[in-house]
Amino acid sequence: MKIQDRVFHSKFTVRYSETDRMGYLYYGHYAAYFEVARVEALRELGVVYKQLEDEGILLPVRTFNIHYKAPAHYDDLVEIQTRITQFSGTRILFHFESFRNDTLLNTAQVELVFVDKNTGRPCKAPEHLVRLFED
Amino acid sequence: MKIQDRVFHSKFTVRYSETDRMGYLYYGHYAAYFEVARVEALRELGVVYKQLEDEGILLPVRTFNIHYKAPAHYDDLVEIQTRITQFSGTRILFHFESFRNDTLLNTAQVELVFVDKNTGRPCKAPEHLVRLFED
Amino acid sequence: MKIQDRVFHSKFTVRYSETDRMGYLYYGHYAAYFEVARVEALRELGVVYKQLEDEGILLPVRTFNIHYKAPAHYDDLVEIQTRITQFSGTRILFHFESFRNDTLLNTAQVELVFVDKNTGRPCKAPEHLVRLFED
Amino acid sequence: MKIQDRVFHSKFTVRYSETDRMGYLYYGHYAAYFEVARVEALRELGVVYKQLEDEGILLPVRTFNIHYKAPAHYDDLVEIQTRITQFSGTRILFHFESFRNDTLLNTAQVELVFVDKNTGRPCKAPEHLVRLFED
Repeated sequence: MKIQDRVFHSKFTVRYSETDRMGYLYYGHYAAYFEVARVEALRELGVVYKQLEDEGILLPVRTFNIHYKAPAHYDDLVEIQTRITQFSGTRILFHFESFRNDTLLNTAQVELVFVDKNTGRPCKAPEHLVRLFED
Repeated sequence: MKIQDRVFHSKFTVRYSETDRMGYLYYGHYAAYFEVARVEALRELGVVYKQLEDEGILLPVRTFNIHYKAPAHYDDLVEIQTRITQFSGTRILFHFESFRNDTLLNTAQVELVFVDKNTGRPCKAPEHLVRLFED
Repeated sequence: MKIQDRVFHSKFTVRYSETDRMGYLYYGHYAAYFEVARVEALRELGVVYKQLEDEGILLPVRTFNIHYKAPAHYDDLVEIQTRITQFSGTRILFHFESFRNDTLLNTAQVELVFVDKNTGRPCKAPEHLVRLFED
Repeated sequence: MKIQDRVFHSKFTVRYSETDRMGYLYYGHYAAYFEVARVEALRELGVVYKQLEDEGILLPVRTFNIHYKAPAHYDDLVEIQTRITQFSGTRILFHFESFRNDTLLNTAQVELVFVDKNTGRPCKAPEHLVRLFED
C-alpha cells in the first residue's frame, strides 16, 4: 500500500487549558494537535522526528491552512485522521481531518520543508525518508 | 478614509514560553497574536470585542491561512500589520503581515463569522458595526 | 482502600509546542498536565469534572507549589503519579510526582476550592463527592 | 537604592487564547507572565536574559509557588509588581504580586538557579550580575 493511500489516526482529549471563554477548544491549538498527529504518522512509518532533528534536519512549517466547521469543547475526544498527500524530496504535505464522533470539526493542510539545522537553508530529505516514499 | 484602506499596528515581544526547541516562535502561536491584533484593530474603530460577546455575539474563526517566510526568535520584536479586507454583514476578513524590522515573517488571512451566542448559529453583525463599514 | 491511599497514573508525551528554546518542557506547562492528571484521578473515582461544572460547581486553584528537580525534553514520556491527600468538604488537595522512567522530575501540590458558579463564592462540595471520601 | 528594595512593573492584557471555559485567565499562564516580568526587571538592571543564554548561562526555575486570591478575566489589564528578594551568586529569588486595578489577584515566588549550558550543572552567576547586587 502506498504511503499516500494510508490514513493515520491520532486521539486527543481536549484539556481545560486548551479551552477558551467561548467554551471551545481555542482555534489556535489545532496547530499543536496536528504537530502531534504528523509525528505519530511518521513514527508509524518508522521515522522518529526527534532523531531527524538530532541528525541536523529541521522540518519547519511553510504553510498552514485550516477550515473550521464545528467547534470542539472541553473533555471532547477529538480524532484526527492524517494523510501524507505529497512528498517531493524537499518538502512534505500533510492533510488532516478532525472529528468528534461522526462530526467533521475541520479540515487542514500543513506543508513542511526540510531545512539544514546548521545553515538554516532548505535541503533534501534524508535518504531513509526518500526510500520510504519510493516503495 | 475607508476602513478597508487603513492599516493597524500591533507589537509583540516573543515570550520564552512561546519559543520551541528549534529556538523559533512556535508556528501555532501566531493564531494568538492575530487574535490580539484584530482585537486591537477593532478597538481603534471603537468596537470592543469583549462587549460584542457580552451583547451575545460570538466571532469564531472559520478559516485561517498562513504562509511562513522566516521565523521569529525569542525576545524578537514582532510587528503585525492588520487590514480588514472584507466585511459582508455576516462575516469579516482580516489580512495580516508580520515583520521583524524590515523582514517579512509571514502573511495570513483569518475569516470570522458572526454567531448568535444563544442559538450557536450564524447571525448578522450588530448595527453599530455595519454602520462603521458603510462610511 | 481509602482514597487517600490510592495512587493514580497519567501519561504525557511532551509535545513540540510544549518545549522551549532551552529544549525543555516549559516549566509553566506542568500546570496543564496536573489539570489533566487530577481530572483523570477524579474520573477513576466516578466523578466527571465536566459534570461538576454543568451542575454549577467550579473548582478553581487556590495554591500551586512545584519543586523542579530535572527537566523533561521533547518526546519524553512523562508519568505523573497523583494522590488526593486532603478533602475537607470545601477544598481538595492533590499531590503530584512527575517521572521520566525512574527519574523524579518534580513534586507539586495543588489546592482547589469548591466555588458556586452563580455566586462566585466558596461552597460545599456536592454530596456524591463527600460520600466518596467518607468510605 | 538597593536592588532588593526596588519594585519593577510589567503590564499584560489578558489574551483570548489565555482564557479558559470558566472565563478566567487560566491559572497556568501566570508562569509565562512571571517569566516576562522577571526578564523585564532584569532588563531594567541592564541584564539581557537572552545574552545570558548566549554566553552559556541558563536560568531554569527550581521552585514556583503561587497563591491565587481572585481571577483575572479576558481583556483585563493585569499589572505585575516584581521584587528580587534574594541573590546568592548561584540562585536568584523573585517575588511577584499581580493586580487588576487595586485588587490583588495573586502572590508568587520563583526561585531560579544558574546552570552551565554545556554541562547542565549548577554554576556561579556571571561577574557582571554579581557586581550589580554588591552595590
